[in-house]
Amino acid sequence: MPTVRGVFPPVPTIFDADGALDLDRFARNLSRWNTTGLAGYVVLGSNGEFALLDEREKLALIERAREVTPRDKLLIAGTAVESTRGTIALTRAAAALGADLAIVLTPHYYSPSYDMAAYVRHFGAVADASPIPILAYNMPSYAKVDLPASTLIALANHPNIVGYKESGNNVAKIAEVAAAAPHGFAPLAGSGSQYLPARLVGATGGIMSLAIVAPDACVDLETAIEAGDLPRAQALQRRLLALNNAVTTRFGIAGVKAALDLLGYEGGAPREPLAPLSDADRRELATVLHAAGLVVATT
Amino acid sequence: MPTVRGVFPPVPTIFDADGALDLDRFARNLSRWNTTGLAGYVVLGSNGEFALLDEREKLALIERAREVTPRDKLLIAGTAVESTRGTIALTRAAAALGADLAIVLTPHYYSPSYDMAAYVRHFGAVADASPIPILAYNMPSYAKVDLPASTLIALANHPNIVGYKESGNNVAKIAEVAAAAPHGFAPLAGSGSQYLPARLVGATGGIMSLAIVAPDACVDLETAIEAGDLPRAQALQRRLLALNNAVTTRFGIAGVKAALDLLGYEGGAPREPLAPLSDADRRELATVLHAAGLVVATT
Amino acid sequence: MPTVRGVFPPVPTIFDADGALDLDRFARNLSRWNTTGLAGYVVLGSNGEFALLDEREKLALIERAREVTPRDKLLIAGTAVESTRGTIALTRAAAALGADLAIVLTPHYYSPSYDMAAYVRHFGAVADASPIPILAYNMPSYAKVDLPASTLIALANHPNIVGYKESGNNVAKIAEVAAAAPHGFAPLAGSGSQYLPARLVGATGGIMSLAIVAPDACVDLETAIEAGDLPRAQALQRRLLALNNAVTTRFGIAGVKAALDLLGYEGGAPREPLAPLSDADRRELATVLHAAGLVVATT
Amino acid sequence: MPTVRGVFPPVPTIFDADGALDLDRFARNLSRWNTTGLAGYVVLGSNGEFALLDEREKLALIERAREVTPRDKLLIAGTAVESTRGTIALTRAAAALGADLAIVLTPHYYSPSYDMAAYVRHFGAVADASPIPILAYNMPSYAKVDLPASTLIALANHPNIVGYKESGNNVAKIAEVAAAAPHGFAPLAGSGSQYLPARLVGATGGIMSLAIVAPDACVDLETAIEAGDLPRAQALQRRLLALNNAVTTRFGIAGVKAALDLLGYEGGAPREPLAPLSDADRRELATVLHAAGLVVATT
Repeated sequence: MPTVRGVFPPVPTIFDADGALDLDRFARNLSRWNTTGLAGYVVLGSNGEFALLDEREKLALIERAREVTPRDKLLIAGTAVESTRGTIALTRAAAALGADLAIVLTPHYYSPSYDMAAYVRHFGAVADASPIPILAYNMPSYAKVDLPASTLIALANHPNIVGYKESGNNVAKIAEVAAAAPHGFAPLAGSGSQYLPARLVGATGGIMSLAIVAPDACVDLETAIEAGDLPRAQALQRRLLALNNAVTTRFGIAGVKAALDLLGYEGGAPREPLAPLSDADRRELATVLHAAGLVVATT
Repeated sequence: MPTVRGVFPPVPTIFDADGALDLDRFARNLSRWNTTGLAGYVVLGSNGEFALLDEREKLALIERAREVTPRDKLLIAGTAVESTRGTIALTRAAAALGADLAIVLTPHYYSPSYDMAAYVRHFGAVADASPIPILAYNMPSYAKVDLPASTLIALANHPNIVGYKESGNNVAKIAEVAAAAPHGFAPLAGSGSQYLPARLVGATGGIMSLAIVAPDACVDLETAIEAGDLPRAQALQRRLLALNNAVTTRFGIAGVKAALDLLGYEGGAPREPLAPLSDADRRELATVLHAAGLVVATT
Repeated sequence: MPTVRGVFPPVPTIFDADGALDLDRFARNLSRWNTTGLAGYVVLGSNGEFALLDEREKLALIERAREVTPRDKLLIAGTAVESTRGTIALTRAAAALGADLAIVLTPHYYSPSYDMAAYVRHFGAVADASPIPILAYNMPSYAKVDLPASTLIALANHPNIVGYKESGNNVAKIAEVAAAAPHGFAPLAGSGSQYLPARLVGATGGIMSLAIVAPDACVDLETAIEAGDLPRAQALQRRLLALNNAVTTRFGIAGVKAALDLLGYEGGAPREPLAPLSDADRRELATVLHAAGLVVATT
Repeated sequence: MPTVRGVFPPVPTIFDADGALDLDRFARNLSRWNTTGLAGYVVLGSNGEFALLDEREKLALIERAREVTPRDKLLIAGTAVESTRGTIALTRAAAALGADLAIVLTPHYYSPSYDMAAYVRHFGAVADASPIPILAYNMPSYAKVDLPASTLIALANHPNIVGYKESGNNVAKIAEVAAAAPHGFAPLAGSGSQYLPARLVGATGGIMSLAIVAPDACVDLETAIEAGDLPRAQALQRRLLALNNAVTTRFGIAGVKAALDLLGYEGGAPREPLAPLSDADRRELATVLHAAGLVVATT
């Protein structure tokens, strides 16, 4: 399998007015993004509210995503539950539905009982059993677990673990893993604010909410980096900071969905206990989007 | 509904050699505990590895527990998933299967996005929709969320939230909640090491792993407290400290199961990524059980 | 030395309008408290803003406290700095100025570099070198270090470490330490909200801000406990919860000082970066004090 | 004042066999580093064990450092204590002794009582009163406080706060602060592992332990960056990762001192409660230094 590269949005899960899955509106977003230079999609990521979905909903989302994702884009499915057994089952189901890769979050509820050996065993067992390659997913702020470089390097030596997403803002860790991992392993930036620095020390791409709101700008940044045009990449990265900070860091999952509404895509409310944006926050978000040069459809 | 009172073990989920649910051995433990003075059972608690089970397994456990739980004992089922919607669905299903109460853990994966109002909304929505009374479950070490007294007091004012389990070792918080909650509300100790002090400041009982390993001793302690025999209660509590520390604090879920094996009950291994006890730890545990006066069946 | 027993306030350090030490007003508070049943005073505790004082100020406070503290009350001085060497020096100086005991906070700035053995070495070296007995001080919320029962029990076996203050609200830990420590060792409650439960599982007294604002009520509670009058102790403890919560938990060091102002004692502003109470908070505090039956001198 | 730029080591404080300050050996290290391209020295940083020193020792170190630091290198002194008042006093004393800048750590002991406004007031008061420019120092792992970009940007707008050191491994934050701060403000990398990515998003230099052990390699990296030679900078950064990880992340302050011993500089033991390296760790460190191409004088 070739190295995972480029920009991937962790696509939102869309609900109807009753809070049920709305697969048509979910698919409509992907169809529009199909025209961009995005390298593929991550479904069932944290931003996709995977933790708020049941198993049937998860399978339905993967199935629909596969239908609308062209073969030249990678479909990556989040398949983690807390147990090794359940994660293997969901990973196999995702593979059967056509996912190209699975991204597996660290188990975390019983984290006081897990040492690093437990994480190596867990990811190893999932990777052994999976018919598709695995990305590990390190997400300290939500999972309250932060895998160190040494553990990630151990994972990188499994032949079926082909990359990892670093959502901990730790560019130094990305550099360490990239330097020590086997050739072809893909460290991926977990935030649009660190895309450029991460890429310059060994990341091969990124999975970031910013790419939902500003896919073209993110792809431009990647293109400038690939072309070795550092001044242009620095200018593009700088421009994206305020947008990323407002849309994803400050307003979170609800903010990304509100931005999609404002930009003429399908958004809507997140599932409870997540709350939708207040009207005041929505107005402020519209201002930020406008300042970033994005066309705000409705306010 | 009368106030929830007395000692409840968070009963373990038993697996067979292939890691599948073993309902018969699960039921055998309950049948033996039916002869004790335990006030009832909590199924699908943290110690019951609820987070490592899928939905079908959860329903099967509640169903089987109901079959073997006599009507004079309360059957309390853990029904929390991360979403409000899913928690309501599982709570209703538990009620339909005969659970007397549901115990609902704080949602936590997206905790950086939740303020206290979100928790009040979440528990309120579940309690509104539930046909059976609700206990809130505050579990800081696993959920990495610690509800303050003020939030718990707000929950206590919902007519269908009839108690809460405090697993944060915070006896002062139990006292504050007990002092401010409506009459009949049941604060419950979450650890056998704090049963006596919690009871003396307003807790009405406890849900604690210690009651799995030493049900009679825990019931004796409760009986002494009810009888107002403080010196005897102090002596009993003191005796239970070392046992609780070894079995539950130090060796955790795997330790409780190993203790059940040693005491002639059904135990076995926890589900991965939880690991079973090492042989050395198992030997040490046998020594602790023996020192506590428990009859160790096998070493 | 006899076991440390009873109620100790961690007395505030008083500043003049320019932010300099005001020893006269500091001494005036102590003189008034001399007429109560308080067992002694802790100077240079967290509530005494020890961390905001320089070495000369610390020595001046101990000296003045000694002058006004009668011999039937214990004078306990906080002598911790971050280094073992500096803590020994300050402890010796405190002893030379007449302190009866020293209370020594866990070093914490370099806590990622300290294992439990480092804490045992540190406290051991200080206790070896100190001419006066030592209390260990476990203060998780400020020091961001929480010594476990096993470490505290190791400290308790040093002949010159005669007790410890538990400020982590962990009554179970107090019980475990009390059960395992040598006879005469004094676990002390660190908060007025847990005084009764802590005493009933082995604490011999407490060091708590509540005793600054309500010394007589705290002494009454201790007297009821000593007399074995549990119902009266429970009622007194219950009454103190709201007061403690408001004065110390919610409004902190500035709240204690504002309460002293309102009650006709010497209070004033804390040292920056601590901020004084806002006018709105001060009015709310006056209401709480009034509701607790305390005579508010001025509002 | 011109923008702070380049590579600064947080120089170690050297003790004699009795644990007292050894100013001559301290000065000897600086004299040797004077021949390198280092931009200056930070005395009394975290790596300089400032927290384990008393006030007299701090002043003596600044004075001696000034004597041996040539005028073309900046002398930056750590002047933070917990109080605003004390920090102002020490900053003025440092200025009187010839320090060019002061670096001021976030107050942290009472951090549960500090909101962001308190931090802005504290740094503002120090900067107002200081005769020399101020660098803010954000050090989450030791201070357990992490100032967000918004607060740092507020500080950057004070005319006498001319930069800040980010020790939280958060390159995205450096980028955000650099983008929003006034022209000339100097974000500084706090770790050698993130020097290159930090510089490429707006940092103007770094204060890092790695520069103690490998000053020439760090200066080479800075030179490559200044020259716009990205491939060379990437290769140099990559080579430094393992060294930085071993010397500073893994072995900490004691490791830096042990490395100095091995490299023929003055090192010795840290002050207690910090512990010196074990013999086994020392041997491993020697291997790492050798692998990094450094000349190990003694093993």
